[in-house]
Amino acid sequence: MGKNALVAQSGGPSPVINASLEGVLEACRDYPNHIDNVYAAWHGVEGILQEQLIDLGAQPREETELLRYTPAAGAIGTCRYKLTPEQGEDFERIIEVMCAHDVGYFFYIGGNDSMDTALRVGRLARQHGLDLVVTGVPKTIDNDVGDPEFKLIDHTPGYGSAARYWASIIQSINEESRGISTSECVCVLQAMGRTAGFIPAASRLGDPDREMPLQIYTTESGHTLESLADNVNRELIGSGRCIVVVSEGFDVGSLGEAHDGFGHIEYGASRFAVAQVVANYLNERGYRARGQATWQVPGVLQRSTSIYASNVDIDEAYEVGRKAVEIGVEEGSGWMATLLRTEGETYSVRYDKAPLEKVANSVRHLPAEWISQDGLDVTDDFVRYARPLIGDDWPPIRIENGRPRFARLTVQFIDKKSKDYVPVRFL
Amino acid sequence: MGKNALVAQSGGPSPVINASLEGVLEACRDYPNHIDNVYAAWHGVEGILQEQLIDLGAQPREETELLRYTPAAGAIGTCRYKLTPEQGEDFERIIEVMCAHDVGYFFYIGGNDSMDTALRVGRLARQHGLDLVVTGVPKTIDNDVGDPEFKLIDHTPGYGSAARYWASIIQSINEESRGISTSECVCVLQAMGRTAGFIPAASRLGDPDREMPLQIYTTESGHTLESLADNVNRELIGSGRCIVVVSEGFDVGSLGEAHDGFGHIEYGASRFAVAQVVANYLNERGYRARGQATWQVPGVLQRSTSIYASNVDIDEAYEVGRKAVEIGVEEGSGWMATLLRTEGETYSVRYDKAPLEKVANSVRHLPAEWISQDGLDVTDDFVRYARPLIGDDWPPIRIENGRPRFARLTVQFIDKKSKDYVPVRFL
Repeated sequence: MGKNALVAQSGGPSPVINASLEGVLEACRDYPNHIDNVYAAWHGVEGILQEQLIDLGAQPREETELLRYTPAAGAIGTCRYKLTPEQGEDFERIIEVMCAHDVGYFFYIGGNDSMDTALRVGRLARQHGLDLVVTGVPKTIDNDVGDPEFKLIDHTPGYGSAARYWASIIQSINEESRGISTSECVCVLQAMGRTAGFIPAASRLGDPDREMPLQIYTTESGHTLESLADNVNRELIGSGRCIVVVSEGFDVGSLGEAHDGFGHIEYGASRFAVAQVVANYLNERGYRARGQATWQVPGVLQRSTSIYASNVDIDEAYEVGRKAVEIGVEEGSGWMATLLRTEGETYSVRYDKAPLEKVANSVRHLPAEWISQDGLDVTDDFVRYARPLIGDDWPPIRIENGRPRFARLTVQFIDKKSKDYVPVRFL
Repeated sequence: MGKNALVAQSGGPSPVINASLEGVLEACRDYPNHIDNVYAAWHGVEGILQEQLIDLGAQPREETELLRYTPAAGAIGTCRYKLTPEQGEDFERIIEVMCAHDVGYFFYIGGNDSMDTALRVGRLARQHGLDLVVTGVPKTIDNDVGDPEFKLIDHTPGYGSAARYWASIIQSINEESRGISTSECVCVLQAMGRTAGFIPAASRLGDPDREMPLQIYTTESGHTLESLADNVNRELIGSGRCIVVVSEGFDVGSLGEAHDGFGHIEYGASRFAVAQVVANYLNERGYRARGQATWQVPGVLQRSTSIYASNVDIDEAYEVGRKAVEIGVEEGSGWMATLLRTEGETYSVRYDKAPLEKVANSVRHLPAEWISQDGLDVTDDFVRYARPLIGDDWPPIRIENGRPRFARLTVQFIDKKSKDYVPVRFL
């Protein structure tokens, strides 16, 4: 008789986070001697703390198989509940709930922070003499899981799909921009990725031959609003239009600071979007176009849209989930599943593992050598790195009644076995 | 020997405007005794005034066949150049250029304003004793071409695709919203359609069974920021989350007016997006959620994205373009091609015509009887009206090198035959 497995998600969703979830679930079925039931925590750590567990293995197979093409985290939920080492009570509670439900395997799908939580849970379990295997499943559209040298993990599941979103929409935006007359010729788009510029960088994949008037402002670009305006004006003199992709983490300098001083007016100015600050700056200072710069914030759509998911990313996310189970059962606790690019002309990956402590809490930036000298673009080396990740075809999203048919799990909690508990941050 | 045809586009693009363009081009080939060359004006009226004409018929067929799946107006351009009756010089110039290039057929793809322009050009040509046939091709994602009783045109090409965009993304947003924990539980999305609420209304197609906590605020809804906040809070008490779709034309009342008085601060406050005003209002006044309301402005993506185009809309846009040519050749000047729904259980349309003067310059609103009594939703009658327009499958967008392959026409102007001219509004 084996133990039970518990899977949980943390942090922002991705278009393929559910593919990893399905991979974990399917692989658990391959180890009937080790793993009995597979539970999912509803909304990640919040669900563990509140003992809100779903019997994932009891869900209809035809629904869980749809997880592969179901974006974002609506299936079992995720959370942003912060677990710091000071929250000893919360950690003890996690152990308590896992004991109560005879959990022997904990698979935690998330980014850097989550790997730190996984590490701590694993250590605490060991202190309690518990036989708990903790394994991380990497997930982040930002591609910023801590491995600056790309030796532990080539890229994170989720990134390929966010990259494909940007590669695709930048083409639509170019058609829009070409089509509209010169009276509206600067389009500013805000990309996610507060600290690492991998996402805005991927817009280059929509125009690898550099035919569009595209400028990319990553967090790492070193540009300011002033230099951005100069660059845009130069492009306007040349081609008459400009597409500006700006990271949400782009430093808008003193104007960014000024926002916080706006407390006396109707709206908290920190609610300004970076793309909006850029467009307003262009419109109000030294902007040579006849019309207005416009701005768009696609926002959460870049992480929650299934049709832009990359088939490569979907497959890899699924396999990484499977690999995590294999590692957990066969190698024991303390690892994160990873994927590494194999040598050779044709893109392929092999799945591997990295110690949790090596990837926890550290951040990977867009390498400086992948940013062009003028700071407005990425290099061809970046394109060669990222191009295979977006795949070569649309994903086969099933349509029913004119709409994508996503997995819909039954959210019914299994019987509670421990006393009521209020998470520290909910007190 | 026939005359030449000239086709031009005007106003905002749509995902299927190029399908109408292809329809016009292909149908012109069917009338070799009437029509010799097919020219396209580069950026609509601006291209006519400046005699910037492209030989559309000379473009490779394999490129023009891709127009069907190429979104927005990048192929031949559109414009927002306003032509009022006072601009007599411009109108005379249009006639001059058409004479110079022996244009006998003018096909004008656009919305209400464009139909007015087409009407005036036709009348002026007649005054000059010119043999010019002017035919309108309807296009607008807003579905607001002037026919309040739906007797002349059931819907406009472009609307079905914008509707499909909203039906699709509202599902993604719901997965996102379900997935994120209760600390971020109101998502405000801004939809296009300044005067008519057909676009935000279409978000209901993403949830026809009303399973999501979705509230729809059209321009016609009659709601205010205050009543919106009340409604959202009520939903939060019920389901703990809320998805708010708000029209860009939604009246934000005194806060909307206050924006214009913001001239003394760094940013022109008219640059606020409606979704942002709504989210800020929720965050700063009487909002009962623990976290922040977030806001997204998908902006031009809803009119320039090919993968969300509706196959039904693509086909209809193409056929309406074809029909316009048939009307022009066989019935003469002064009509706009239309489409009307046939009676019966199964959705189908027949193509027809309406006099330009009947559709020019008037606006169709979302009928009051299609808005629910509480003003937060649309009725099932609206769903029955709009559902067939979004189709039942993804469009077959061709992928090359991981990216959609759009039509790329050669933009090379044919030899000028009249003197240089500066459009009135460029003076």
